[in-house]
Amino acid sequence: MFKMYNTVRMYDTDAAGILYFGAQFRFAHDAFEALMAIEGFTFQQLFEQEPFIFVIVHAESDYKYTLHVGDVIEAETEVANIGATSFAISYRFFKETLEGRVLAGTSKTVHVCIDKETRTKRLLDPRYVAMLAKHHYGD
Amino acid sequence: MFKMYNTVRMYDTDAAGILYFGAQFRFAHDAFEALMAIEGFTFQQLFEQEPFIFVIVHAESDYKYTLHVGDVIEAETEVANIGATSFAISYRFFKETLEGRVLAGTSKTVHVCIDKETRTKRLLDPRYVAMLAKHHYGD
Amino acid sequence: MFKMYNTVRMYDTDAAGILYFGAQFRFAHDAFEALMAIEGFTFQQLFEQEPFIFVIVHAESDYKYTLHVGDVIEAETEVANIGATSFAISYRFFKETLEGRVLAGTSKTVHVCIDKETRTKRLLDPRYVAMLAKHHYGD
Amino acid sequence: MFKMYNTVRMYDTDAAGILYFGAQFRFAHDAFEALMAIEGFTFQQLFEQEPFIFVIVHAESDYKYTLHVGDVIEAETEVANIGATSFAISYRFFKETLEGRVLAGTSKTVHVCIDKETRTKRLLDPRYVAMLAKHHYGD
Repeated sequence: MFKMYNTVRMYDTDAAGILYFGAQFRFAHDAFEALMAIEGFTFQQLFEQEPFIFVIVHAESDYKYTLHVGDVIEAETEVANIGATSFAISYRFFKETLEGRVLAGTSKTVHVCIDKETRTKRLLDPRYVAMLAKHHYGD
Repeated sequence: MFKMYNTVRMYDTDAAGILYFGAQFRFAHDAFEALMAIEGFTFQQLFEQEPFIFVIVHAESDYKYTLHVGDVIEAETEVANIGATSFAISYRFFKETLEGRVLAGTSKTVHVCIDKETRTKRLLDPRYVAMLAKHHYGD
Repeated sequence: MFKMYNTVRMYDTDAAGILYFGAQFRFAHDAFEALMAIEGFTFQQLFEQEPFIFVIVHAESDYKYTLHVGDVIEAETEVANIGATSFAISYRFFKETLEGRVLAGTSKTVHVCIDKETRTKRLLDPRYVAMLAKHHYGD
Repeated sequence: MFKMYNTVRMYDTDAAGILYFGAQFRFAHDAFEALMAIEGFTFQQLFEQEPFIFVIVHAESDYKYTLHVGDVIEAETEVANIGATSFAISYRFFKETLEGRVLAGTSKTVHVCIDKETRTKRLLDPRYVAMLAKHHYGD
């Protein structure tokens, strides 16, 4: 399971004093970019060298525990699904508390492979399928 | 139906050249804040004067049509559900194109009423229920 | 003088309960994009059709009056300087208060014209100089 | 000299394909929050326990080298000035390239100490002065 740490920053909070809901998607995309990078697939390479890009067609988050500025969260990221032309990533964000490790929130993103020329869906490249499969732990 | 216009800005886009997925939640919250404001319920008043706040426990977006910097979107916002301690808002974002008005994306946010003292759920205040009901068009 | 209104949103605030300093640059760029658009120069057109882009090489803001969520600000925008290969935009943000209209903050951005091919500075296009000159009110 | 690493993320870029100028202030505040945290001064503690807060009254950035998604930057942070009621932080952001380490940008933020009750300036707390002095390397 791919894990990384992140920190809730001032710009992630709002006047309610806690995490702004949209900021959790920042943690999700950080984790996705980091997972790609450790596998040798960078977004810059994607833009410059591949005939396709990935476009997010769905994103969702649930919020279960209050997060404040300075809180360190551990993100667990895995591939939730691999389809013919798309894949889904799921994220769980944990926070260490005095009562133990609590699940602060979850997110999910669905990515579709789009041909740069035709701007339509295309089959996932086998290199990406193989990479994603390493982080897919079954149904 | 509450409607407002918004514009896709440079900071809403990313290096893929199109709307960054997280930015659609900005349009959603803009619409929610604007709906509240025209009804006379401002967030600043909420923070300063009410014994409760609203916390988002779920948020989701679907993306259906590519948006670029400068695109003007029309947001249609309605109350999707009113519960005892929570409510849901749904958003539809449209773009005018040469082929007509297209649905560019949808979002949904679920808000729970939290007591500032006890930090636990509490019943929705009747004033807010009445306001939300004006924007709720049935099941 | 080009003027537009903007609203401080929840995502513009932070846990201190007031405007997050970085958010003022959002108001600045909104104003710059809007000024360009009313003159018929859109960023999307810039990316797709021009052999150059504009890159910001300097940005600064001063903060003079506390802003909260829901505050409506009026942005006054003018071209502060037009050089051979660059130009500067200045912004003043006002808020209406019970004591009258107060200056809440100022910003400045400096933009350099970069050739897309050579990635080096190039002379400002005369069409852009003419457009900018309309919003430049002298030294 | 306090140093930390950061990564340019997709949400830091815009449709020009490079770092959105406002995102550099994210790197600056990350560095400031991290410097505070390693010294044992957290923002959450500041909000909950101190009779004062720090408000940014000036911020500026210069941009010297193009940054793309995935670029790793090293931030060097130091206290540029300590006054009676304010202090300034300066930041330098470096990127490793094939030609060696290059300065990609610089930022500066000026922070004023504000009394929570009176909402006016107050003298810097000696504990904070001592902490800041550790990161101040001369005039």
